[in-house]
Amino acid sequence: MAVNLPPPDPKSLLPVPGVELGIAMAAIKEPNRKDLLVMRLAPGAIVAGVFTKNRFCAAPVLLAKKHLGSKDIRALVVNTGNANAATGKDGLNRAFSVCRSVASLLYSKPNQILPFSTGVILEPLPADRIVAGLPKAVSDLRPDNWASAAEAIMTTDTVPKAYSRKVTLSGGDAVVTGIAKGSGMIRPDMATMLGFVATDARVSRKNLQSMVKRVSDKSFNCITVDGDTSTNDSFMLIATGKGPDASSSKDLLLLQKVITEISQQLAQAIIRDGEGATKFVTVTVERGRNEAECRRIAYAIAHSPLVKTAFFASDPNLGRILAAIGYAGVKDLDTGRVDLFLDDVIVAKGGARHPAYVEALGVKAMQKAEFTVRAVVNRGKASATVWTCDFSYDYVKINAEYRS
Amino acid sequence: MAVNLPPPDPKSLLPVPGVELGIAMAAIKEPNRKDLLVMRLAPGAIVAGVFTKNRFCAAPVLLAKKHLGSKDIRALVVNTGNANAATGKDGLNRAFSVCRSVASLLYSKPNQILPFSTGVILEPLPADRIVAGLPKAVSDLRPDNWASAAEAIMTTDTVPKAYSRKVTLSGGDAVVTGIAKGSGMIRPDMATMLGFVATDARVSRKNLQSMVKRVSDKSFNCITVDGDTSTNDSFMLIATGKGPDASSSKDLLLLQKVITEISQQLAQAIIRDGEGATKFVTVTVERGRNEAECRRIAYAIAHSPLVKTAFFASDPNLGRILAAIGYAGVKDLDTGRVDLFLDDVIVAKGGARHPAYVEALGVKAMQKAEFTVRAVVNRGKASATVWTCDFSYDYVKINAEYRS
Repeated sequence: MAVNLPPPDPKSLLPVPGVELGIAMAAIKEPNRKDLLVMRLAPGAIVAGVFTKNRFCAAPVLLAKKHLGSKDIRALVVNTGNANAATGKDGLNRAFSVCRSVASLLYSKPNQILPFSTGVILEPLPADRIVAGLPKAVSDLRPDNWASAAEAIMTTDTVPKAYSRKVTLSGGDAVVTGIAKGSGMIRPDMATMLGFVATDARVSRKNLQSMVKRVSDKSFNCITVDGDTSTNDSFMLIATGKGPDASSSKDLLLLQKVITEISQQLAQAIIRDGEGATKFVTVTVERGRNEAECRRIAYAIAHSPLVKTAFFASDPNLGRILAAIGYAGVKDLDTGRVDLFLDDVIVAKGGARHPAYVEALGVKAMQKAEFTVRAVVNRGKASATVWTCDFSYDYVKINAEYRS
Repeated sequence: MAVNLPPPDPKSLLPVPGVELGIAMAAIKEPNRKDLLVMRLAPGAIVAGVFTKNRFCAAPVLLAKKHLGSKDIRALVVNTGNANAATGKDGLNRAFSVCRSVASLLYSKPNQILPFSTGVILEPLPADRIVAGLPKAVSDLRPDNWASAAEAIMTTDTVPKAYSRKVTLSGGDAVVTGIAKGSGMIRPDMATMLGFVATDARVSRKNLQSMVKRVSDKSFNCITVDGDTSTNDSFMLIATGKGPDASSSKDLLLLQKVITEISQQLAQAIIRDGEGATKFVTVTVERGRNEAECRRIAYAIAHSPLVKTAFFASDPNLGRILAAIGYAGVKDLDTGRVDLFLDDVIVAKGGARHPAYVEALGVKAMQKAEFTVRAVVNRGKASATVWTCDFSYDYVKINAEYRS
């Protein structure tokens, strides 16, 4: 089902000095499936993260936020099959018991471990099965395990998501490698379901924390499958410091650029693998008064079930897009100045159909697996882009049947 | 497909003295279909209305708002098959030509006519075919034509929607009869797609204008099918003054109560006939700090595609409801105090699963064609209710195929 999303070639994924990954099958939801990942970090690695703004944020999110305060993180532990969300104090205890077990195996302390969970909400985490699987995952730890790690964090994903790049800083080459998961309940408010990007560059804690926010605002915070912000969204950026230094403004900007590109590839991969997706659609809003109103309009288009079913049908029922622009909540929008394009095809000019537009042109653009909806509101200089997918029979099927 | 929605019995629909209705087949979108309605009002009738807040509001909406200023409305003209929205100045000219034609046939002025349109957006209104159909509609004018009128305003509706009641005021019996249409693009911000309620009671203009807002806030403004606020929403309340007087506070409140009940029936009928609907779901949020936050949470639940597909599957994947409560945007919500019920079944207490809850109870509640989701947030005394439907394969089918 995924739109133009080949699985990663394991050989393309560069190890990051200072990061080892180990995988196990712990039968968390079902047997014989990679569902547990331990990511060990060498001493001195710095970790920064952003998390979901959902008020029902999961127990592991609460614990990871707290443990990040310890500033000397030695491992991340990720399970799929259970989100450990809406589970109260018992959920926190279970997440902590997993951290304690990892810490014991790695000769470190529980607050040096960051826990992450993804899967069904409102059910107790089978911590005993996770704890039983951990020795296997720890014995599997090695630097060239990124492809397996991407597999081990999948839920309704159909394709693992991993990308890797080299970047030449003034002190030498640094590596950036990242993995992510996510397919449904995707409308990150702060980060995506789960995303982990690591570099061996040496970056200060303060710079890394600034970078993770800037990167997520240009990548994971620009996607939506269904408008449902998850309880477990977490995006973690790791700098092990085993490679070249990145402290000059020039090196930091260069590193940020490459990390943003990797993160955009991961975020877009989540949309390409969106539940039931048959189309990958870029929604761009231009010449708005500020970025916030451009995002607001872009999300109104990207969330409209009517627009998304029209994408699915390649049906240029484009009045639905104008209706979404109209209800996006930009109160003083002058609809008489709104232009609308499908790729290079001009559909509407000044809020009404362009005389040159004929439906065959719209159909042709929408039949492609990837296209761009561009709304130009002509009231300022700001712009924003959101990536989304269509709404198909399979979205209903997947979500009516998941967990049953 | 409609959920517990029998078609209206024409005999149950009471004529409203001072209102005559005439129908025609004008081949606006396709031939041999009732698609044109003229509603003539006797001199002295008072009309009040509320309209969509969509910035792309349709040409007839702009014109109806303007003509309402003339204060001596003699007729409403409604076409289905074309929304005349996002059509610019040309759309306004075409809507006005329809008003001019009605005015000429009824010996009145164009600004005494209110135009309404519903159907596809961004296409030119075939005003010539409407004008050609008007003499037929005018010659059909009669007081007992409400059932046919309800049919003539349908688009993707599968069942006409019409209700009628008598109310005993101090001066005698008054009649309240109403019709509405709507099935998709339903998340009225001010009123529903199209709703018309008439009474023969004598109500002052000022009181009628207050009443229409209060009524719509308790009926049409409490429903959602897909979160898409239409470009054409209009709800009109007509008081012909041919019946008993309603000027005392007691009579006004009594009349308002009955009009609210009729309007709620009409609004709920739109949800029962929601595109692809197989379930009618009442979402109630209780003990919030104010009504606005209760509505916000209720709409987050009612709009979530994940929640709606779970409704369709009768799958008590109830963590999805908690996730929606969590991202509804109530920033200081204490999730540790949130209780959740499905009808009388307690699912969650204090933000986590209630020990007594077993899944079989949830399945049983959700298998019913109608049930209530009740979230108690325990932080105040306000509450709000929203009516919605599920999200089925047929929603995708209807919207992927409509207009093609």
